[in-house]
Amino acid sequence: MRVGVLTGGGDCPGLNAVIRAVVRKGVTDYGYDFVGFRDGWRGPLEADTQTLDIPAVRGILPRGGTILGSSRTNPMKIEGGVEKIRENLAKLEVDALVAIGGEDTLGVATRLHEHGVQVVGVPKTIDNDLGATDYTFGFDTAVNIATEAIDRLHTTAESHRRVLIVEVMGRHAGWIAIHSGMAGGANVILIPEQQFDIEQVCGWVESRFRTNYAPIVVVAEGAVPLDGQMVTKDQSLDAFGHVKLSGIGDWLAAEIERRTGHEARTTVLGHVQRGGTPTAFDRWLATRFGFHAIDAVHDGAWGQMVALRGVDVVTVPLQEATRELKTVPPSLYDEAKTLFG
Amino acid sequence: MRVGVLTGGGDCPGLNAVIRAVVRKGVTDYGYDFVGFRDGWRGPLEADTQTLDIPAVRGILPRGGTILGSSRTNPMKIEGGVEKIRENLAKLEVDALVAIGGEDTLGVATRLHEHGVQVVGVPKTIDNDLGATDYTFGFDTAVNIATEAIDRLHTTAESHRRVLIVEVMGRHAGWIAIHSGMAGGANVILIPEQQFDIEQVCGWVESRFRTNYAPIVVVAEGAVPLDGQMVTKDQSLDAFGHVKLSGIGDWLAAEIERRTGHEARTTVLGHVQRGGTPTAFDRWLATRFGFHAIDAVHDGAWGQMVALRGVDVVTVPLQEATRELKTVPPSLYDEAKTLFG
Amino acid sequence: MRVGVLTGGGDCPGLNAVIRAVVRKGVTDYGYDFVGFRDGWRGPLEADTQTLDIPAVRGILPRGGTILGSSRTNPMKIEGGVEKIRENLAKLEVDALVAIGGEDTLGVATRLHEHGVQVVGVPKTIDNDLGATDYTFGFDTAVNIATEAIDRLHTTAESHRRVLIVEVMGRHAGWIAIHSGMAGGANVILIPEQQFDIEQVCGWVESRFRTNYAPIVVVAEGAVPLDGQMVTKDQSLDAFGHVKLSGIGDWLAAEIERRTGHEARTTVLGHVQRGGTPTAFDRWLATRFGFHAIDAVHDGAWGQMVALRGVDVVTVPLQEATRELKTVPPSLYDEAKTLFG
Amino acid sequence: MRVGVLTGGGDCPGLNAVIRAVVRKGVTDYGYDFVGFRDGWRGPLEADTQTLDIPAVRGILPRGGTILGSSRTNPMKIEGGVEKIRENLAKLEVDALVAIGGEDTLGVATRLHEHGVQVVGVPKTIDNDLGATDYTFGFDTAVNIATEAIDRLHTTAESHRRVLIVEVMGRHAGWIAIHSGMAGGANVILIPEQQFDIEQVCGWVESRFRTNYAPIVVVAEGAVPLDGQMVTKDQSLDAFGHVKLSGIGDWLAAEIERRTGHEARTTVLGHVQRGGTPTAFDRWLATRFGFHAIDAVHDGAWGQMVALRGVDVVTVPLQEATRELKTVPPSLYDEAKTLFG
Repeated sequence: MRVGVLTGGGDCPGLNAVIRAVVRKGVTDYGYDFVGFRDGWRGPLEADTQTLDIPAVRGILPRGGTILGSSRTNPMKIEGGVEKIRENLAKLEVDALVAIGGEDTLGVATRLHEHGVQVVGVPKTIDNDLGATDYTFGFDTAVNIATEAIDRLHTTAESHRRVLIVEVMGRHAGWIAIHSGMAGGANVILIPEQQFDIEQVCGWVESRFRTNYAPIVVVAEGAVPLDGQMVTKDQSLDAFGHVKLSGIGDWLAAEIERRTGHEARTTVLGHVQRGGTPTAFDRWLATRFGFHAIDAVHDGAWGQMVALRGVDVVTVPLQEATRELKTVPPSLYDEAKTLFG
Repeated sequence: MRVGVLTGGGDCPGLNAVIRAVVRKGVTDYGYDFVGFRDGWRGPLEADTQTLDIPAVRGILPRGGTILGSSRTNPMKIEGGVEKIRENLAKLEVDALVAIGGEDTLGVATRLHEHGVQVVGVPKTIDNDLGATDYTFGFDTAVNIATEAIDRLHTTAESHRRVLIVEVMGRHAGWIAIHSGMAGGANVILIPEQQFDIEQVCGWVESRFRTNYAPIVVVAEGAVPLDGQMVTKDQSLDAFGHVKLSGIGDWLAAEIERRTGHEARTTVLGHVQRGGTPTAFDRWLATRFGFHAIDAVHDGAWGQMVALRGVDVVTVPLQEATRELKTVPPSLYDEAKTLFG
Repeated sequence: MRVGVLTGGGDCPGLNAVIRAVVRKGVTDYGYDFVGFRDGWRGPLEADTQTLDIPAVRGILPRGGTILGSSRTNPMKIEGGVEKIRENLAKLEVDALVAIGGEDTLGVATRLHEHGVQVVGVPKTIDNDLGATDYTFGFDTAVNIATEAIDRLHTTAESHRRVLIVEVMGRHAGWIAIHSGMAGGANVILIPEQQFDIEQVCGWVESRFRTNYAPIVVVAEGAVPLDGQMVTKDQSLDAFGHVKLSGIGDWLAAEIERRTGHEARTTVLGHVQRGGTPTAFDRWLATRFGFHAIDAVHDGAWGQMVALRGVDVVTVPLQEATRELKTVPPSLYDEAKTLFG
Repeated sequence: MRVGVLTGGGDCPGLNAVIRAVVRKGVTDYGYDFVGFRDGWRGPLEADTQTLDIPAVRGILPRGGTILGSSRTNPMKIEGGVEKIRENLAKLEVDALVAIGGEDTLGVATRLHEHGVQVVGVPKTIDNDLGATDYTFGFDTAVNIATEAIDRLHTTAESHRRVLIVEVMGRHAGWIAIHSGMAGGANVILIPEQQFDIEQVCGWVESRFRTNYAPIVVVAEGAVPLDGQMVTKDQSLDAFGHVKLSGIGDWLAAEIERRTGHEARTTVLGHVQRGGTPTAFDRWLATRFGFHAIDAVHDGAWGQMVALRGVDVVTVPLQEATRELKTVPPSLYDEAKTLFG
């Protein structure tokens, strides 16, 4: 059996750990050959491959990024893309694919499976917003990075009596915000799932100042205020004609300053959250995902992907990855609210 | 309602996060008063208390240890211990207890509950060996510390072509060993659940050297070789008449050197694994355990303890904490074995 | 002898370590009493004090911030400020002051010394731009935080072929930028001391892409392009009427995108760089500064401050702290340039 | 010009950073070719080489260990070793050598220089005990690792009222012990330079317990008690006939328990201190050492090595590396003693 492996979509700590586990177990236990496809679906589309054997995966376990490269190339949006991939797989004598990626990458995998390609999936989203699995690798690393930043901001917040705002990842789901906010002891946490009332936010800020401590606000990039409170999150032009995308963190700082009179400063963690060495949990989860993915190949469980349920790694249909977004439940947000202000 | 809180048994990152969450939610949502009992069960036994209010728990979330102190005092082994505790609780007008601790502490809580004391439990074990919950706080921190040590040993192992052995915690269960070993890319992992064959270990060591890399062996403190391979893990006296407890890590190093001729060195991480600031996951879990424990008090769920099941915190009877040891299942150890050698 | 201690200006990891060392050595070796003044010069100005003895400094060594609080209150700008301070010191029976702070705080100390106040100084600047000392505490911590961020960005830069820009502290001197940029393997480092040519920056960026790797640009907040390249670093208004301060990092990203067509993203580390636990070096330096400051009090070395020269802590006149800004020498920037592109 | 590079002796974070800087600057600024010699002096002795160009040094800056391998091979102890090296250098058309290593490696370099080999040195010792330079790379990393371990032990020490002992590296000099001990807030620091009185150590331990806190003792591996207090640091045999080397940390624990009745536990950090990613300072210093070493080659400064003096990298004769051991001066140890007990 000859198995192709590819990684698609955004960067995520643990991708290399998955690749290594797939190859190590595939070679050792099943005697498979492997082919690395470069840059996500661009690889099989253009028959762009690289050597993928045990020496190639040595030492990559603790490294961020992906040795296979990544891209957002979508063969479904390319005329004849599916046929091209089938041809290339046949030409390269690749019997099966392990596709590691998020909603888009696994959506393509689902379609290819419907066209008869033998594929299994490994879910990946740093935002932890895939419904089919309890957790995805990379998330724990992002949460720890954000928490460490919040830890560091606490002392400055106190010494200077300023409002400090941390904008973290999470376009559609507030998992990173709520986990890091609770772990870091934030005084306000704002998530995309719940429109916030800027007046209430200012109330929590004022309430915190009354305890003689300064407030820390954690905001997911996708959080939005109540309708009407932000005229429109428009693109403005700066003095040099550059487009200025005003992030929610900056908006919050300006608005809190205007309404409360307290100085406010924003840190946007950005890409720092998704690079570098994965935490132990993410390596563990990624390694186990890799093992179970190659087991699924061995079992001929085409069209399936691996998922974490409690402490068990199981397989579920690929469609589950894209069926629904896993968002922060209101009950959990209510728990966190106990600590606001 | 007046609620007493105590922490018993060994140190574990996250204890303070539990205490803080119990108090913050108890005061804010339920209007409870709190009393801190000092040094585990010694506190209620001797009516030794300390102030426990919102100012007292400020800033403790990221700190290791426990502001309440701990001990292994067991009132069940003290004549009239139970009565003394009941008297003191009455005298101090304490209506309910939140007991945070491991098998021993919760065992006492179970007995007190049988004697009519209103108590709820929060499970604690750095070894992650309680059957009633998927994970306990402190474990993730210990695994990350051990993994970081293994990461650092890799470069030295390679540069010097030595066998490097890391002895980690785990007297009865190999959870820390298997998680950190898999996350750190160890070449051999030895756990208490499976007696090891020293000859097979030496085989894996030799096999690793043939790849031009040096092997790293992770061993749980409770791991043992096959019957007969270690004459007896006896106490020897050193030249100064001191008792020398020969740990399994040291034994392994000596035995591997003797059998393979390769130099071997052991690092015993010891208490470093159980101190200091908790990881984001442990703070998150400890905080949620604290919230649900005080909810259980509010619900009058006496004799119950909180537990993690998947992503949910639930309550289960206290007896479950002590019913059976949660050990590493053979199937998981087999997964790990794929990477040995 | 009764000694007052105060901390002024911006937050800096190591302030607490200085306070602890001053008090521990002052009590143990010299039998002094201490008074903590709150919030920098506001403390002696308003006779606002707090207890400062050995129990008060217990456990603060690894903590960021300052237990004495800080402010930018400048008694020189307050009518009768100096007299008020002299009165309050007399009333509180404070014989001498240890003033820990940067250019402003030590400038006030210099003036007070000229008015007969017995004061010694401890220099503090996270930017490392004081001419009188080889290094100041807090700087090493900031550099390590920035370097860790750069490390994490490397993998993302590579996976996505984007230009990643990190804006670090340094208004007037590029020490943090050049240290973290060299330690992190940045491809371009821009500092306030040398106006940069945006065309040359784009050339380095393009050159890096030709090696099949993506570039990382580290820019000090005070760096500026050649005259005329940035029309004016003006304040623009966003769609909501908020003032938008366009930082140099954001400007660079927009300008590089416009000129090269490569996507660029900026991370502004902000206050994360100056909070949290200090590195070992900063604790060591801060502790030694504290020891030598109280020795200077004992020696009656009024008007002096401590400074690091090589591996030795020495005392120098307070004026040296404010005499000249220590900037990155051109020869060092030329060394760093070897690695550009 | 064709330049050979080798690394000798023990592992040390920063070796790769030196190699990278030498090659990057040598190629970019001077147009040199490079040859990597494998495993220290064994490389030129056996003409064992590897490719060393810009692609070969890509990505190695943050990695521990050395891509060239290391060994303790000493050509001076091999019949005809010097001639063999001269022959091989001629045969490989290597004009000059950059030797990176400690006392032994640089001692060989000195001798080869006397025999006409064009060599420059880069000093390396994790113990920081070379007299010719203020600091060596790797030391700061080791100190930070030891300090973080001490931080973690503090909470356990307090919770359990135990004496916790940390044995750190330092056979002949106590630099790691005194830096990490002071940075970590240890209560006793023992170094090779000053024989300790075990009775005085027990006095400090008892004194610490009287403050209601538990003591932490940092001991360099080379520290020894007063003559007569330790009968002999002999080798004992354990029950299985294995040689048991009793380290000073274990001896201290046993002796403190015996004399004070307090429980004592030892953590031996071992190789963990010398592996893994270097701190920002060590990468900075190693990079600058590399730059200046290749400058020295360009200047024909044969027989010289680079060294740090204050903030400047200078060149000094190779002999200075081996002239005298740099030990902790009594005045510095006295500073540290202020905090004992």
